[in-house]
Amino acid sequence: MSNKRGVVLLSGGIDSATTLYYALDKGYEIDVLTFDYGQKNRGEIGSAKSIAQAVGVEYKVIKLDFSWGGSALLDKDIELPKGDLEREGVPISYVPSRNIVFLSCALSYAETKLFNEVFIGANAVDYSGYPDCRPSFIEAFQRVVDYGTKSGVEGNSIKIAAPLLNLKKSEIISLGDSLNVPFNLTSSCYKGDSEPCMECDSCLIREQGFKEAGLEDPIIKR
Amino acid sequence: MSNKRGVVLLSGGIDSATTLYYALDKGYEIDVLTFDYGQKNRGEIGSAKSIAQAVGVEYKVIKLDFSWGGSALLDKDIELPKGDLEREGVPISYVPSRNIVFLSCALSYAETKLFNEVFIGANAVDYSGYPDCRPSFIEAFQRVVDYGTKSGVEGNSIKIAAPLLNLKKSEIISLGDSLNVPFNLTSSCYKGDSEPCMECDSCLIREQGFKEAGLEDPIIKR
Repeated sequence: MSNKRGVVLLSGGIDSATTLYYALDKGYEIDVLTFDYGQKNRGEIGSAKSIAQAVGVEYKVIKLDFSWGGSALLDKDIELPKGDLEREGVPISYVPSRNIVFLSCALSYAETKLFNEVFIGANAVDYSGYPDCRPSFIEAFQRVVDYGTKSGVEGNSIKIAAPLLNLKKSEIISLGDSLNVPFNLTSSCYKGDSEPCMECDSCLIREQGFKEAGLEDPIIKR
Repeated sequence: MSNKRGVVLLSGGIDSATTLYYALDKGYEIDVLTFDYGQKNRGEIGSAKSIAQAVGVEYKVIKLDFSWGGSALLDKDIELPKGDLEREGVPISYVPSRNIVFLSCALSYAETKLFNEVFIGANAVDYSGYPDCRPSFIEAFQRVVDYGTKSGVEGNSIKIAAPLLNLKKSEIISLGDSLNVPFNLTSSCYKGDSEPCMECDSCLIREQGFKEAGLEDPIIKR
């Protein structure tokens, strides 16, 4: 078995799609995991599937129970706020412990399949202020792998790789562009209507990123 | 809202049942979470439900996808080995990253409900050698909470409590006995037939624990 096998968490957005193409470019054999956790943007699951199929990698949707809600991305009763990139604190679109649950499931999958990396497209520069996207979180989760898994105990810890962690959104988009990421297949809007709302944090960050990268966003109709 | 509210991970075995009664005895309001992850011992889910109903706490079963298997507790194709408490290394009954996934889901639930503790019955003395039951793992997971959740960022981290971590099995049983844990409702056997097999690690550890505690196990027919 190749010693470069990994899982990529693919949400269907720009960051995770770029992470997938990055890992493939580095020569990894990749399986893709996507989570159906009741998110309002149902379209992103289809986006993830289209992206995975475009590069022909193994693909699995994992259903997760987040029925306790607690986020504007999940609860019908919590309206998605208009974006505000100057806002401080953790926004209402934060899904409690989401990346911790996603990484844990991916870790279980990777341990079983004897893969050696789990890739996540977390990014802590142009982002919504989610605690589970920061370098200190990724480092802390790596220690959980080191101390809490068979791979860790046996001295060959699965690596949690977050290659986009310190890139600006425009740098991620430029990287993705150079790797031929099919941005036309990606989905970023928190609402998930057929057209991006261009009002939520995610739409605003995407718009600014393409602008700074000097590229046109193929999902925007002009 | 009381500042003593917690989630208990209840598998239906002795350790988690004792943890539940311990937390209630300490004055916590408790919700119980049980995981249906495709375990061969289907009876333990019913045991957990009976125990939760016996003390009248809120109770939820969370379905999890562990379809990738990788453990004798899950895979039909992997036979449960006879117990061997002198064995070294991680046994085939280890479910890859199980407690990491369980704690992550409980953490999400606790964050949403604004609870301040997550209780797990992990124990690293008389146990099967699972890496995700050791103090170093619990400490590492606490750092994930500190750095990767809203509760951590806001300076009121949810506490991961493992009150049985350093107790011998016989001490857990004595503690449970003093708290009136209904051991007759608990289920420990990995196989989960109507009678405990008395051959797997879990049955052997339980048998030895009751013996050392000087108590009779009410689930053993004499």
